[in-house]
Amino acid sequence: MSAVARLIGVGVGPGDPELLTLKAVRTLEEAQVVAHFAKAGNASNARAIVAAHLRPGVAEIALHYPVTTELPRSTPAYCDTMRSFYDASARAVAAHLDAGRNVAVICEGDPLFYGSYMHLHVRLAPRYPTDVIAGVTGMSGCWSAVGAPMAQGNDVFTVLPATLSESELQRRLADADGAVVVKLGRHLPKVRRALERTGRLERAIYVERGTMANARSMALAACTDAQAPYLAVVLVPGWEDRA
Amino acid sequence: MSAVARLIGVGVGPGDPELLTLKAVRTLEEAQVVAHFAKAGNASNARAIVAAHLRPGVAEIALHYPVTTELPRSTPAYCDTMRSFYDASARAVAAHLDAGRNVAVICEGDPLFYGSYMHLHVRLAPRYPTDVIAGVTGMSGCWSAVGAPMAQGNDVFTVLPATLSESELQRRLADADGAVVVKLGRHLPKVRRALERTGRLERAIYVERGTMANARSMALAACTDAQAPYLAVVLVPGWEDRA
Repeated sequence: MSAVARLIGVGVGPGDPELLTLKAVRTLEEAQVVAHFAKAGNASNARAIVAAHLRPGVAEIALHYPVTTELPRSTPAYCDTMRSFYDASARAVAAHLDAGRNVAVICEGDPLFYGSYMHLHVRLAPRYPTDVIAGVTGMSGCWSAVGAPMAQGNDVFTVLPATLSESELQRRLADADGAVVVKLGRHLPKVRRALERTGRLERAIYVERGTMANARSMALAACTDAQAPYLAVVLVPGWEDRA
Repeated sequence: MSAVARLIGVGVGPGDPELLTLKAVRTLEEAQVVAHFAKAGNASNARAIVAAHLRPGVAEIALHYPVTTELPRSTPAYCDTMRSFYDASARAVAAHLDAGRNVAVICEGDPLFYGSYMHLHVRLAPRYPTDVIAGVTGMSGCWSAVGAPMAQGNDVFTVLPATLSESELQRRLADADGAVVVKLGRHLPKVRRALERTGRLERAIYVERGTMANARSMALAACTDAQAPYLAVVLVPGWEDRA
């Protein structure tokens, strides 16, 4: 009797290949099939992080996001396109599981924290034995790179998408001790204004490309760019009363 | 000319020794001095996680928290006692740095996210070259162990200490998509009531001892304990509209 195949979500951390866990490395060295998401026409960032640990000739499933630049994200057409893509991706992974092969799905950061893997997890975890290997998050890589003490003791900590309205950002930034604002892109000036209005601009730190070799960081007050890369973050360290 | 010694905050993850990063392992194998916090009279949890990677005979600094059970946490006497302890701890680490020896301070979870290391970081990072090695957080270990999808897309995610008042917990739980409530202890019944009032008790998961060998988890609705261990957490998965 052969063992039932397992779905394994593998967090590969924020970018520095040394921030892989021992468990992720072992899992990848043992994996029969490795799956990864990537933009259409691009190599997978997660695959680049783990490249040194893949067995030569290991089977791979490259899941390429559909090109959706012509579809606004709020439209039903966009949602339908993405849902179909994730359904088809789940079927491609399930075909290997049904054939008795374990599949490791690699994912930047932590699999269950804003991770691409989650779309497969909710479709397949109810049907197949599943393991999730926690990873270092992208934001943790960022605050470690700049040495920002984010939260301590009884601090309230929050993660906010920069897509929120300016008033919502302002309200929520005033309501937390430590905060990270993600998905900056064209929303950077709005985030800067919201922090200025809450009197916290001075503490805020802008970080681009976290633990990558070409990382860039500075006081947000000094960053007057009109636009940031999509994966840039703003860190608002908590723990005002440092003892 | 000898190189200037470095302070290194090393995140050792949530408990499973395999969730150490490659960078943490290399740093510990190279470290001249390893420092760790522990309760008075107890062995350090962080040290137990990394034990297999310490060089035989490596110099260690064991920083034992003072016994403060007779002091309420809100009193100036408690704060003074803790401040003096952290000041003395920083001096003990600085003595090695001044003698030219790198010091790796090991810390459960991630060093700058509710980590004990932060007390040394704020005292020493302004004076000594400092590196921080990000780690897998304790909460990430918990949600990975139970496979709970915590946050996706434009979700707002928040971390709340269970010490908040019931009304504050209720308000903040209603205001976030995904949430983790930490430091449960005797506050468990209050957290359960706050989640019931926000209509989210059904989704909530209770997790004790995260990635430890003796982990325990269940639907919070089924956990009627009056008290939880201090390090137990409640997970409230976000991402209601799963696609």
